[in-house]
Amino acid sequence: MRKRGNSKEWRPEHAAANGILNRRVFLEGALVAAAAGAGSTAAGAEPLPVPSWMKQPGAGFSAYGQPSPFESKVVRSIAPAPNPATQGIGTARTPLQLLNGTITPNGLHFDRSHSGTPNIDPDQHRLLIHGLVKQPLVFTLEALSRYPMQSRITFIECAGNSGALNTAQAQPGNAQAIHGLLSCAEWTGVRLATLLEEAGVEPSAKWVVAEGADAAAMSRSVPLAKCMDDALVCLYQNGERVRPSNGYPIRLLLPGFEGNMNVKWLRRLKLTEGPVMAKDETSKYTVLLPDGKAWQFVFPMEVKSIITHPSPGLALRGAGFYEIAGLAWSGQGRIRQVEVSADGGNSWAPAVLQEPVLSKALTRFRAPWQWSGGPAILQSRATDDTGRVQPTRAQFVAERGLRGQYHYNAISSWRIDEKGEASNAFA
Amino acid sequence: MRKRGNSKEWRPEHAAANGILNRRVFLEGALVAAAAGAGSTAAGAEPLPVPSWMKQPGAGFSAYGQPSPFESKVVRSIAPAPNPATQGIGTARTPLQLLNGTITPNGLHFDRSHSGTPNIDPDQHRLLIHGLVKQPLVFTLEALSRYPMQSRITFIECAGNSGALNTAQAQPGNAQAIHGLLSCAEWTGVRLATLLEEAGVEPSAKWVVAEGADAAAMSRSVPLAKCMDDALVCLYQNGERVRPSNGYPIRLLLPGFEGNMNVKWLRRLKLTEGPVMAKDETSKYTVLLPDGKAWQFVFPMEVKSIITHPSPGLALRGAGFYEIAGLAWSGQGRIRQVEVSADGGNSWAPAVLQEPVLSKALTRFRAPWQWSGGPAILQSRATDDTGRVQPTRAQFVAERGLRGQYHYNAISSWRIDEKGEASNAFA
Repeated sequence: MRKRGNSKEWRPEHAAANGILNRRVFLEGALVAAAAGAGSTAAGAEPLPVPSWMKQPGAGFSAYGQPSPFESKVVRSIAPAPNPATQGIGTARTPLQLLNGTITPNGLHFDRSHSGTPNIDPDQHRLLIHGLVKQPLVFTLEALSRYPMQSRITFIECAGNSGALNTAQAQPGNAQAIHGLLSCAEWTGVRLATLLEEAGVEPSAKWVVAEGADAAAMSRSVPLAKCMDDALVCLYQNGERVRPSNGYPIRLLLPGFEGNMNVKWLRRLKLTEGPVMAKDETSKYTVLLPDGKAWQFVFPMEVKSIITHPSPGLALRGAGFYEIAGLAWSGQGRIRQVEVSADGGNSWAPAVLQEPVLSKALTRFRAPWQWSGGPAILQSRATDDTGRVQPTRAQFVAERGLRGQYHYNAISSWRIDEKGEASNAFA
Repeated sequence: MRKRGNSKEWRPEHAAANGILNRRVFLEGALVAAAAGAGSTAAGAEPLPVPSWMKQPGAGFSAYGQPSPFESKVVRSIAPAPNPATQGIGTARTPLQLLNGTITPNGLHFDRSHSGTPNIDPDQHRLLIHGLVKQPLVFTLEALSRYPMQSRITFIECAGNSGALNTAQAQPGNAQAIHGLLSCAEWTGVRLATLLEEAGVEPSAKWVVAEGADAAAMSRSVPLAKCMDDALVCLYQNGERVRPSNGYPIRLLLPGFEGNMNVKWLRRLKLTEGPVMAKDETSKYTVLLPDGKAWQFVFPMEVKSIITHPSPGLALRGAGFYEIAGLAWSGQGRIRQVEVSADGGNSWAPAVLQEPVLSKALTRFRAPWQWSGGPAILQSRATDDTGRVQPTRAQFVAERGLRGQYHYNAISSWRIDEKGEASNAFA
């Protein structure tokens, strides 16, 4: 079988240096075909040989399906604390570089837990709303199921995601290791506002303390305004009941807010005048500044984007056409634009955003790239509909220094070498 | 703990007979709280007792997560042919009444297979494009991975879904048993048009025969126009690689077309002048009419809706507020409107459509309902953006008779009795 040669005859319009093509390539079939042709080979013998799996009936049906055994490497990477007594303290990261689209399948949604995943009997679980309310209320799962529901596709990102980039020297790491505390699902639940209005909010209430039913009793103070806005008490994740590692049977969803505030295994909401200064918002989840002070209560995750393809572990196989693809998001709203660069940020071209672009959800972006076979630095830069733009690494470090590990949202870089290997780089 | 009584003081505006409320209930928090209050109970002792699972650390992390063991009944229902030699011939149905939102988690996506699920080695799998093309091409998975991708959230519905309703007398059955050959996922893949344009379509080509790599070599003829429009050669389902029972490693996606045409385990696309009259489009998947003739090549699934909550198996627990929720879809485009009735179609009120409403995707609708405790017949009626309206059962039967089992899209009914039990009814 021979390689087809028509891509050699093709002279696409370049939109930025080092091979970034005009998005028009995606819209005009003939251009794509010419650009992409390096991927196919002319058919030799026809018909195709009949594979062994067509010669006998396949497997029967399963009640609950699983991925192909050939995809056994598409798993979360687990980084628990080393002590077996604390096995549930740590993270399990989403393999972003092995996924596409925007939805994270439930088996691969990232998991950051502070004392493991409790095995909660839903019939025994209760949600209490109390504190500065006219009438404390307690809800069973069955009671919650009677309330009006809403669904929304929303990302959740750990405040510590990408924190590994806030070091003086770039360390090895792939998209999963560096950025994998990020996932996106369709969440369905009851508006928290509905439940709070039923309890009756006292005028003095300004905060709500949310507590989880894990052994850590993970607790965060949430402004009442957020609870009355778009907060959901979620029962469903991508259609089915919330997964145990994501808060079964109830998770608080605070769209756009840092991951740990989306309290898992939600059991208690206490309305208060001020924040409770829980261990989880004082010993952790504050943004350390160069002068030793810290920002507390930094809630929304900032506008951000990452390139998932190409990325470390996905080697390019020779010069030619590749699609640059990645994810963009903002805790403040919708993504308005993503730009890509193949020369370390010297020149930029707009990427295509996959519709629908939803507020506080992951947005898949794509851009056509003709790799010359030479070195390249791939970057992406997101802008949201509030006008916020993802900062450069230099801008970020100038403001925050190199000590903090939370809310890192600077432009990140993959260096492509002449072998087509990608690696984490500071540029 | 006592029941709160404020719902008794509340007089909501009714939008249709037998308790269907105005959608405004969902928009005004106080109204929802009053309507929904029957679900909660006033808190007795505070604080809540500490459950056993908070007294010790929880489970550690898992590489690929699973649902809670308490959800072990949320599974597909399997209806294979009775002969063990044909274990892979039949269906596995999605438990629609136990899900919410619009995305079907991959483990529960319905599965209709004609000779079981082949265990395909992706490194050995090939896709051949041949027939009336300038240059036959063969693609490996790795080659396909280099092409530009698109993502879209799309329903797939088996042509035989709901066919159990096309009988003279209503039979017992829940939403899963009757309507469960219906699922929705975010699919990601390469535009088929891109691959066809690379091969070069001969002017005489008008059809494309798609063949699967199962032992049935499941084959369907697809109009070339559809292939050049929105067809995708999918590699990903809800972010991860397509599941084995849904076509791993490649599934053809023909948005809106009947399920079996979305050929699983896609291995061959042959461009032809006419349809090939494959066994799968002559012995099956034709629409039998009262006069003994049949419609062939009925591709798009018709505008349709079903109520998932309440539905058989989800008994109501006493008079009061309930949310009527369900799914609407059309193979022709977007859902424009869904109306609900609690009196068997004598009066109707519009439901709320969950945004975003996407073309050829499931749309979740919801409507507030104050159940009196008396008998009710719940129905939903969808209209799509082409103006097509879901027919009544009488209209459907008058045109099609009672012999066909495919493309049944009439309004369906759940009868609610005075105990709150729901059952399939013809009304």
